[in-house]
Amino acid sequence: MPANRRFTLAARPVGMPKPSDFRIEEQPIREPGDGEIHVKNRYVSLDPAMRGWMTDMKSYVPPVVIGDVMRAFALGEVVASRDPAFAAGDLAAGLFGVQEHATVPAKHATKLLPLAPLPKLMSVLGPPGLTAYFGLLDIGKPQPGETVVVSAAAGAVGSVVVQIAKIKECRVVGIAGGPDKCAYIRELGCDAAIDYKAGDVAAQLREHCPKGVDIYFDNVGGEILDAVLARLALRARIVICGAISQYNATAPVKGPSNLISLLVNRATMTGMVVLDYAPRFPQGVMELAGWFAAGKLTSKEHIVRGLDAFPTALPMLFTGENFGKLLLEL
Amino acid sequence: MPANRRFTLAARPVGMPKPSDFRIEEQPIREPGDGEIHVKNRYVSLDPAMRGWMTDMKSYVPPVVIGDVMRAFALGEVVASRDPAFAAGDLAAGLFGVQEHATVPAKHATKLLPLAPLPKLMSVLGPPGLTAYFGLLDIGKPQPGETVVVSAAAGAVGSVVVQIAKIKECRVVGIAGGPDKCAYIRELGCDAAIDYKAGDVAAQLREHCPKGVDIYFDNVGGEILDAVLARLALRARIVICGAISQYNATAPVKGPSNLISLLVNRATMTGMVVLDYAPRFPQGVMELAGWFAAGKLTSKEHIVRGLDAFPTALPMLFTGENFGKLLLEL
Repeated sequence: MPANRRFTLAARPVGMPKPSDFRIEEQPIREPGDGEIHVKNRYVSLDPAMRGWMTDMKSYVPPVVIGDVMRAFALGEVVASRDPAFAAGDLAAGLFGVQEHATVPAKHATKLLPLAPLPKLMSVLGPPGLTAYFGLLDIGKPQPGETVVVSAAAGAVGSVVVQIAKIKECRVVGIAGGPDKCAYIRELGCDAAIDYKAGDVAAQLREHCPKGVDIYFDNVGGEILDAVLARLALRARIVICGAISQYNATAPVKGPSNLISLLVNRATMTGMVVLDYAPRFPQGVMELAGWFAAGKLTSKEHIVRGLDAFPTALPMLFTGENFGKLLLEL
Repeated sequence: MPANRRFTLAARPVGMPKPSDFRIEEQPIREPGDGEIHVKNRYVSLDPAMRGWMTDMKSYVPPVVIGDVMRAFALGEVVASRDPAFAAGDLAAGLFGVQEHATVPAKHATKLLPLAPLPKLMSVLGPPGLTAYFGLLDIGKPQPGETVVVSAAAGAVGSVVVQIAKIKECRVVGIAGGPDKCAYIRELGCDAAIDYKAGDVAAQLREHCPKGVDIYFDNVGGEILDAVLARLALRARIVICGAISQYNATAPVKGPSNLISLLVNRATMTGMVVLDYAPRFPQGVMELAGWFAAGKLTSKEHIVRGLDAFPTALPMLFTGENFGKLLLEL
């Protein structure tokens, strides 16, 4: 049997993760025991949330233990199964880690149908799509004609939020970094695109949201959140999905000065973690797949080849170098 | 007819309001026209919200115009009525302003029944009580056994929140300034009292909220909000009722560093303005009055005598010198 190559967490990163925070290792592949499956990973998802999992603080899941395989969502093919729910050749997804092979309890894996090319199952029809779907629809509750602002709008989650908000007949203002990403989000349907790297976000929000912001889907936190707070409409809803501007902070971050806008506008700010919606994933995937098949949803994937690229690919999420859902193809 | 004495807004305060920001004036009392009433004020309510009304910025009501009577909630007796809804001798409450007499449209006034001594109608059975009632019950949604933290817990709103939370069988941790206020909130039923002027609020929150904070009723904002954010329980609800620590700020305030705790804990932060609940005030007053009559609710009023005391009494709200609902008795 071939060996499994994997990246373990060697040290807790301070600031931006660097190659020495990880270690590549070889180990024998473990045969599945009763109730387990052996999966050969095809795609490993690189997500901003992984930065949080490396930090030893209270969060929604325990941190990765030093020396353990780095936690990551992945998609692969079942090689061997000792559980009736899976057969060899099935597609399986789960937190299989940054490695070539995973032997895991079958109950920790989800069987996927090949509804679309595999990278789409990791992006618009996978966790980022579901995050957009439940965050926007369940927490944001968009109504036709409302103004929706989306940060990291060219990203894996944001790009789906933009498109669902258009399906729901909202006015959509996307925020992204650079002219290419701004052109892309306009193609996705944004009524206006704000380049946060070029000029004053607050002034552009004033221009593009003359009636205020009804829903803000926040992936970035920090100064952009503060600027949007200053433009809230009455009874606005803010979905806190991420705060990528702050994940590598090495000192306490600056909170938003304009928080009192929540009171003035009777607005709500709610944090979300997509895992909470697991019982409703089938419903979400079905509706997303319907829109996808109908040509109403599209997505872009940024695919980096080879397990070895992991330590250099991961920081792209934080610099904005990736353009689309960042995936490692094994 | 005697003259009306009133305080107008002479200048927009910078920082703490000072006497020169107001001007005392005499003017003839205006006879009520059709649909109007003439009210002789008995009590004028001094509220932290008044600080916001003095500032020229977008808020939930327009700012007071320079030269106009200072806006304030007040309670008085109807002297003359040209509206069938009121008769001379009725008790009326409304935004009658910091003045001895008000002539206002009857539709802007609420007829009160003398259910309790007049100061109680301005405190536990008035706007502060209603703010506590709707904020805690509608937004906080307390469940038996949950941990509720209340800031400014000895204040007009906070003290009612503490007592309703106990009625709802919650564990209640109050935050107040100084040993007397802490003793008072323990009498009101707080399971623990934190003196924010003595020692580390964060450490005391850890000690007194071992299972985290399910509901935070926030009257103060600033550093205390930040400390509570760090202690949220899963699916916590934060009611943003006020941010008194920041109302006199002359520079952009520091936001909470720990905002990301909303995401980690899938928590919600919601701003409230009691005026939104006006259609349900009768329901609220009825339930509050029932608890009051049954001895389950008490309140303290800090009564300052005479209209002339207004400019020196108002700053007490921000220094914490008042102990109980601050009222001017005319």
